[in-house]
This record gives sequence, structure tokens and C-alpha cells, in this order.
Amino acid sequence: MNNFIYHNPTQLVFGKGQIARLPKLIPADKRILITFGGGSARRNGVYDQVVRALEGRTFFEFWGIEANPSVETLRKAVALGKEQHVDFLLAVGGGSVIDGTKLIAAGLLYDGDPWDLVLRGSSSHTVPLASVLTMAATGSEMNNGAVISRYETREKYAFYGNYPVFSILDPETLFTLPKRQIACGLADTFVHVLEQYLTTPGQSRLMDRWAEGILHTVVEIAPKALGETRDYATMSEYMLSATLALNDMIRMGVTQDWATHMIGHELTALHGLTHGATLAIVINGTLRTLRDQKHGKLLQFGERIWGISEGSEEERIDRTIERTEAFFRSLGLSTRLSQEGIGEATIAEIERRFNASGVHHGEAQNVDGAMARRILEACL
Amino acid sequence: MNNFIYHNPTQLVFGKGQIARLPKLIPADKRILITFGGGSARRNGVYDQVVRALEGRTFFEFWGIEANPSVETLRKAVALGKEQHVDFLLAVGGGSVIDGTKLIAAGLLYDGDPWDLVLRGSSSHTVPLASVLTMAATGSEMNNGAVISRYETREKYAFYGNYPVFSILDPETLFTLPKRQIACGLADTFVHVLEQYLTTPGQSRLMDRWAEGILHTVVEIAPKALGETRDYATMSEYMLSATLALNDMIRMGVTQDWATHMIGHELTALHGLTHGATLAIVINGTLRTLRDQKHGKLLQFGERIWGISEGSEEERIDRTIERTEAFFRSLGLSTRLSQEGIGEATIAEIERRFNASGVHHGEAQNVDGAMARRILEACL
Repeated sequence: MNNFIYHNPTQLVFGKGQIARLPKLIPADKRILITFGGGSARRNGVYDQVVRALEGRTFFEFWGIEANPSVETLRKAVALGKEQHVDFLLAVGGGSVIDGTKLIAAGLLYDGDPWDLVLRGSSSHTVPLASVLTMAATGSEMNNGAVISRYETREKYAFYGNYPVFSILDPETLFTLPKRQIACGLADTFVHVLEQYLTTPGQSRLMDRWAEGILHTVVEIAPKALGETRDYATMSEYMLSATLALNDMIRMGVTQDWATHMIGHELTALHGLTHGATLAIVINGTLRTLRDQKHGKLLQFGERIWGISEGSEEERIDRTIERTEAFFRSLGLSTRLSQEGIGEATIAEIERRFNASGVHHGEAQNVDGAMARRILEACL
Repeated sequence: MNNFIYHNPTQLVFGKGQIARLPKLIPADKRILITFGGGSARRNGVYDQVVRALEGRTFFEFWGIEANPSVETLRKAVALGKEQHVDFLLAVGGGSVIDGTKLIAAGLLYDGDPWDLVLRGSSSHTVPLASVLTMAATGSEMNNGAVISRYETREKYAFYGNYPVFSILDPETLFTLPKRQIACGLADTFVHVLEQYLTTPGQSRLMDRWAEGILHTVVEIAPKALGETRDYATMSEYMLSATLALNDMIRMGVTQDWATHMIGHELTALHGLTHGATLAIVINGTLRTLRDQKHGKLLQFGERIWGISEGSEEERIDRTIERTEAFFRSLGLSTRLSQEGIGEATIAEIERRFNASGVHHGEAQNVDGAMARRILEACL
């Protein structure tokens, strides 16, 4: 086990009716900016619940943080927040709204352009932020990470701000989500775990088990989560799985990969494809291309998650990779670039960008432009 | 899944050499009281590491917090801390030292007798405390619980204070532990999980998996952990398992039991038996006595942890309970009261105490004096 520091101060407030706790969770003297996405919070009743809970408090609203939040939009929120002397941010939405709000929280205490902070990569000098989650996928509600886009230049980078002070997770808010969003959320959750699990074997038995615990849960609940009716127990497991998949709890003392994510981000930047949907494609290329490097863990993953224990090791790995792709297909998602009309032009551009950045991604830091090309060609 | 609030702010600093980080973790202006147990910290070199790390800082030492820390001892530490205007506590030791330090932290800000606070059950008005863990078992390093004894009256009660600000876990500090202490630590860890897992089935797939992940890990590492040589990987898994078994991470949204603990505490109070050793006995009586109530979870536990899947349900439960007792025996611990020379007199006294308290323990709140007697008779 490697040395590590774990420190996740976010308070998780989970369950039905918990939005009503907002006035107890936000100090009474705060000037609050509530940030929203495109309007689903109005349709699903969450907006009404939040406004009712905060009656009598000083708050302002900022609407329109888009999927894959852009610095262009966030600059406007920062301007509004500065103008109103806001000192608390409440993100109401999914990962994109919370991600964007992490940059707003830093931007409020920064004199220059928020994009400077993105290029710098991190800033922990922020006003406090919190969230009411309405879409389970990214884990942003209980980590300090964000991914921010710049549309002018089609760039998309990771940014690390602060952890939310609290996050309210009411599974009932997921009942009105379109099926495709749940599918992408499940894929995102699954691949978040794989990025922290399909690495060098033998680092931590306990972290392996916890990662596998989330994978088992996602596999078991997926059919019901995507069914015609929504039940509370299933939505609870889905919501909690998504949060625990990326809140540092399954990465204590172990290495991580994230190459699939880095390639996926480029697909989103270039084609606007939903994050989870990019991962459901790219992961298959990653596993096929890096199967030797991930040999031991692929065997363990195949045996423990898919029950594949017969045949030679290479046969078992073949079947494990096939079974994994079949799982993403069962969610109703594309697993090949060609299904999304993506081909050589995009591969060439991503290869160029990876080479230009000079950064080598992945656990073994061997995912450069050429390797990114091989991975993408393996999921054409 | 039940509604829940999870909020664990402790910073976990894990790995070899991490004690040297102390000066970065404790603000420079703090007047520190370092609390120790009986002297093992001197023998295993941890004392030297701590003192070297804190060179130039203002600190005082309090030695002698005993196993099952007593208010009689802790009163003296509170007096010393008040006299020296201490505003930060650093516990260096195992669960007993950290438990005791949680009461000292509250006692320093309280004018009366610390025992008042124990009788009140909790106090979050404390000076900040932190820990350097040297014995893995209780999870006290990452929770806010403590168990405090009063020798004059042979009483022992739970007390809830604050979470440590940080806890340093260096697995190398466990290398010199006597084998019996490791055995008790493994038993304690295992039963902590069972208290949160062997309850009503179907509450959370994910929490079940995480609980089972710790059980698997403990079972797998036990032979090596108790072997003649100590290796870092095994001690790391043991140390992390003990912490994650009781830091709120496996109890999100699920019910808990703790009746075994309540009975075990009485055995410690009356006979001075080590906490983990009491659990390795009482749990067997609990499972035999409450087998119908725990039917569904015993089947799941038997199948997933011990691989017991053949035979009728009652046969499987029989074998699961036998296999669990065999596991505790394999640690070299007693699993029957008679092995410790404990019999009817003690059972009668515990029955009397449970009846006198009027509290009904356990998930179903059905463990009163009569049920405690049945449980104890079932592990005679």
C-alpha cells in the first residue's frame, strides 16, 4: 500500500425530504448565490423545494450552467456574485453545475479571468460552496474536482477547487431523469471505479473489495434503474454508488489511471458527446490496447465481477473485455466511435493534442498521442 | 435505504514515515498535551519519533492512560492540561489512549467532574485532538466515540466527543505488537463490521458489499498478521481495515446492532478482559440466540464470506455460526465464557445491570436482561 492522505470534509445529507434541511446547513448571515443548469430544476420541483426552504434568506439565482460548463458562462456568474457580494454558493443540479460552481467559488476571490485559474489547475482559496444533487454521475458533490470547457478554443481541462461543505442527495430528485441520463450516469460511475481499480494488482485487498462492491452494485441495479418505473431503493443505490465512486474512498494507497477520461474529455470537447457516453466507448479501446499492462487486474475483475474463471488467462481476458462492452451496450449506449459517426479526423486531432500537451497519461504514463490513437482505433 | 448524514472530517495520514509530518499538521502556536499509555510508545520508538518531530514546540506529556481508560486517570490529565493552558491534544497510542483523550478534550473546557460528561453521553465542546495510532482495533482514530470506565463503581459507558482533526497511521508502528493484541484487534475489527452488517437484509447492496470487503480482508490477512514475521503489506491492510470498520463509512443508511458490544463492555468492566477478547466470545452467543432474527443476513454472510451455499437454510446457518466461531478460535482467542472462568455469577450480574438500566439494546431493541442472559448462556 502506498502512503496516502485521505481528507474528505463534505457532509453528506442523504434521503428523501432532506432539501428542507437547507436553512440549518447554511449560516443565517450568508448572502447566497444559487446556481442552476438549464431549467430541469424548475420542472422536477427541486427549485420550489429549495426556494421554500430558503424563504427569508438573502439569495440570488444564476441560471444556465450548461452540460460541460464553459468559462464563458461561468464568468457571468462570477460577475453577478461579485456585484451582489455573495459569500456562499449553492449548486443545484448535476455534475456540470457543481463543477462550474467550484470555479465560480474560486473566481469570486480572484481579480483576474477565471480561465487563469483553470490553466493554473487548482485554487483552494474560495468562498464556501454546497450542493443539492439532481443527477448522479460525476461524484462532484463529494470531491474537489471539476472539468471546465472553453468553447472559443474547444479546450477542456481539469480544475481542483474545494470540497462542498455539504451535499444534499435526495434520490427522489432522480425520478424524472430521462433514461439516457441514467445510463450515462451508470457508465460514468462504473468507469470512475475502473480508473481506480484496473491498475497494478496486489496494492490493497481492501480497496479492491470496495471498488468491486460498487461495480457489483451498479451491475445489479442497472436493469431496474433503466426500467419503466423508478423505485426509491434502486435510485438510492444508484445515487450513493455514484458519489462513493469518486470521493477518494476507493483510492486510499493505490495507483490510478484516468487515461480513458483524458481521451473521453477530448471527445466531449470536439463533439459535445455526454461525458458518460464517451467513457462507455473509450474504455473498451483502453482495455483492448492495455490488456497486457492490466493483465492481473483484468483476470481479477473478470472473475469477481463477471464470474469468468474458466479457460486460459488470455481467453478469460478476452471474455472479460467482451462482457464489459456488453454491459455498456445493455445500458443502451454506443460502445464504438463509428456508432457516433466519429472517425479518423477526430483520432488525428486527439493524437495531435496529446502530443502537443506533452503530457503522458495513465497509470504507467505511457498514454501519449500514439497510444491515444491506438486506443481510439481499438474502439472504432 | 434509510435517510442518513455522513460527516467524517478526520484527515487520515497513512504510511511509513508519516509521523514526521506532525509539525505541518499542528498549528505552530498550539500548547500541546501529548497523552500516552503505559510505556509501549517508548519501547517501540514512536515516542522518539514524535518528540523529534515536535522539537521546538510547546508540549507537555501525560503518561499512564490504561487499557479501558478510567475517569480516575483522565481527571489527572485534565488537571495537568488546565494548569498548562493546553489547547491541543495529541493522543499517541491505541484505542484506549485515543478514547481517553476524547474525554480529556471535553474536560478541558468543562468546569465540573469529567464523569458528568460521560453520564451525559456526549460533548462536542472540546479542544481539538489528533492521534498517532500504534495499535489497530477500535477505529477511535477516525470516529468520535469513546468508552470510559469508572473503576470505583465498575461502570463502563460510551461517550461521544469530537472526531480527531487528523490521525497518523504508520503500519510500521504495529510491528512490535504482541500477537495476542493483533488477534484482539482483528476480532474487534471483525465484530465492528458484524454489528453494522448482520442486521435486516436488503437495506443497501453497497453497504453490504463494503462490509463484506472488510470481512474478506480480515479473514485473508489473519494468518499472516499472526505469523512469526511482520510484513508491511499485511500490517497496512490490518491497520486500514480496523479504521474503516468503524469510521461511519459502512453504515450509511442502514440499521445497526451493537448488543454484542454492550454485553462485552460489561465483561470488561467486571473481569478486565480485553475488549476484542470479549467480542470473540459474546458474538457466538448473539448469533446462536438471535439466529431467527438475523436469518437472512446470516445466509448472505455464510455464502459470501465462508462460501456456504449447500444444504437447507437452517443447516447453512448452523455451519455459518460454527465457521465464525472457528475463525475466532483460529486467532488463538477464547470463544466460550468457561475458557475464561466466567460463569453464572457474572451472567446474573449482567442480567441485573441490563434490567436496572432499563435500556433495551440491539437492532430490534429486544436485548434486555433476560435476553442478555440467554446470549451469555449460549456461549458458556
